[in-house]
Amino acid sequence: MPPTEDENNQKKKVALIGCGLIGQSWAVNFLRAGFTVSLFDPVEGVTENAKEKIEYKLNELSKYGLLITEEISDYVSRVYLSKSISEAVQNSVYIQESGPEDLCIKKKLTHNIDQLAPKNIPICSSTSGIPASLYANEVVGKNRCLVAHPINPPHLIPAVEIVPAPFTDASIVNSVKEIILSLNQAPLELKKEIPGFVVNRLQGALLGEAFNLIKAGVASAEDIDKAISHGLGLRWSFMGPFQTIHLNAPEGIKGYVARYEKMYKEMFDSSDLNWSEIVKDGLEKELLNLYSLSEREKYEEQRDNSLIKLLIHKAASES
Amino acid sequence: MPPTEDENNQKKKVALIGCGLIGQSWAVNFLRAGFTVSLFDPVEGVTENAKEKIEYKLNELSKYGLLITEEISDYVSRVYLSKSISEAVQNSVYIQESGPEDLCIKKKLTHNIDQLAPKNIPICSSTSGIPASLYANEVVGKNRCLVAHPINPPHLIPAVEIVPAPFTDASIVNSVKEIILSLNQAPLELKKEIPGFVVNRLQGALLGEAFNLIKAGVASAEDIDKAISHGLGLRWSFMGPFQTIHLNAPEGIKGYVARYEKMYKEMFDSSDLNWSEIVKDGLEKELLNLYSLSEREKYEEQRDNSLIKLLIHKAASES
Repeated sequence: MPPTEDENNQKKKVALIGCGLIGQSWAVNFLRAGFTVSLFDPVEGVTENAKEKIEYKLNELSKYGLLITEEISDYVSRVYLSKSISEAVQNSVYIQESGPEDLCIKKKLTHNIDQLAPKNIPICSSTSGIPASLYANEVVGKNRCLVAHPINPPHLIPAVEIVPAPFTDASIVNSVKEIILSLNQAPLELKKEIPGFVVNRLQGALLGEAFNLIKAGVASAEDIDKAISHGLGLRWSFMGPFQTIHLNAPEGIKGYVARYEKMYKEMFDSSDLNWSEIVKDGLEKELLNLYSLSEREKYEEQRDNSLIKLLIHKAASES
Repeated sequence: MPPTEDENNQKKKVALIGCGLIGQSWAVNFLRAGFTVSLFDPVEGVTENAKEKIEYKLNELSKYGLLITEEISDYVSRVYLSKSISEAVQNSVYIQESGPEDLCIKKKLTHNIDQLAPKNIPICSSTSGIPASLYANEVVGKNRCLVAHPINPPHLIPAVEIVPAPFTDASIVNSVKEIILSLNQAPLELKKEIPGFVVNRLQGALLGEAFNLIKAGVASAEDIDKAISHGLGLRWSFMGPFQTIHLNAPEGIKGYVARYEKMYKEMFDSSDLNWSEIVKDGLEKELLNLYSLSEREKYEEQRDNSLIKLLIHKAASES
């Protein structure tokens, strides 16, 4: 950050089909990484309008010194407005579709893209909820179709969920991950499709409990928000939930779960999930490989330093 | 940040009973705000040891310019080691108990503190799970007993849950909130007791789903962590979940719920919580009062600017 403009990407072209907020942010990410982008939106006026919005976002990044060159025109000169899917996908190495969240539209759109696009290049969808199994199962080139779901706003949030269908080629998945990495984004790969994928399931679980607390009259929305924005969210901005609890007990996740599973169970009596068993079945092993307990003190110090720096940063940003 | 040393707090004394990690962090917070702190831990050696640990934490803060004066001795000179509860609570204006999470111990400790402490001052517990109704119901001065639950590490995370029992005086709750605010912490008040309070219920809901995703073989712990630390956690470090979704749709939370409740419901088919009804019953009104939709564009810009600054900050911290 700012990403080095990747020489390998230069002159490579990607096609972005659907040019709303999400498509525009994808354009910014690809442009920053050196790609040429070809835009197409079937709704009249949207393609032209998108160019202006992309320029605006680039200007915002430039203000903060996040573009390699100060010349916005260097970036904008690599944006092409297309009059059709066929024109947009020509000579592309990658296609990102960011159309409406509607199964019928997505089916048709993906079919059309597949018919017109160069063979063997990935066709990704930004959908936050419709798995490729549903929208691409009748597409001839379905083996190159998968979901690459970004988080709003995608030009500012690195995580991208990579969700292949059972019929997606592993080589396609790998090349998508490489491309996403070359954008300085953080791909996270799902091993199987599930409604809501990972991001929205985690968000949905938290939201569900937040709504529950409102219904039960426990606290105001403002105070519930504070529990996150002045509490849990601080750690979570640099450390995921598993890393957090693994480093929270001298014996790692095993110790944490031994100590707290009962407390959590008593809060949500409907759950029959056995955390200890999941820990034993491989979760502990993965976490010990990632974060060795012999270095726990070092990690704790790193966490505290990150928190101190984050607090200084937040105070400076808010003043 | 750094907090101004509050002149009103100078020479005021607080008693910290229980001097493990949590008690030590409380000491740092009170010292930074100008208080004198009196420490006592019933386990031999712990009280003395705490002073050293407090000094270490103060040194860490000083390194980052987070103390008003550079002289650690100015702070440490306000730490008194007591030989008994009785000595510690003398002339105190506030008592924070951070003993073990054990109902019997907490009952006895609170009883003793109440017997010995000056009348009418608050007696708070750092417990993360035992409500005052349970541990203080037989205490003579139970009307001044309540929970003030910080998040680990308390000297670096501002949120503190204030959880009164039905028998706690409102005036005591208010003075506790004022004291917590004077520490530059962020008090969030629960209107009623509930197992896990707010913070651990929100954390528990997220963790439950994270464990569920591991069990279902959907993604690795490392990738689930990425969904938070490179995704949702970025927004949550300065914006709670309700604010996030309220600002995510042109019609605010009502529009968001109308659009997405069905999607979330399909993920968690066991839930019979009706989000739309909760929105109608007052949640929308509260959020519209907090964040008017007429200023949505301004808020969106603020969000994007906060994200940009956070990304720059993270890149700088990690390099």
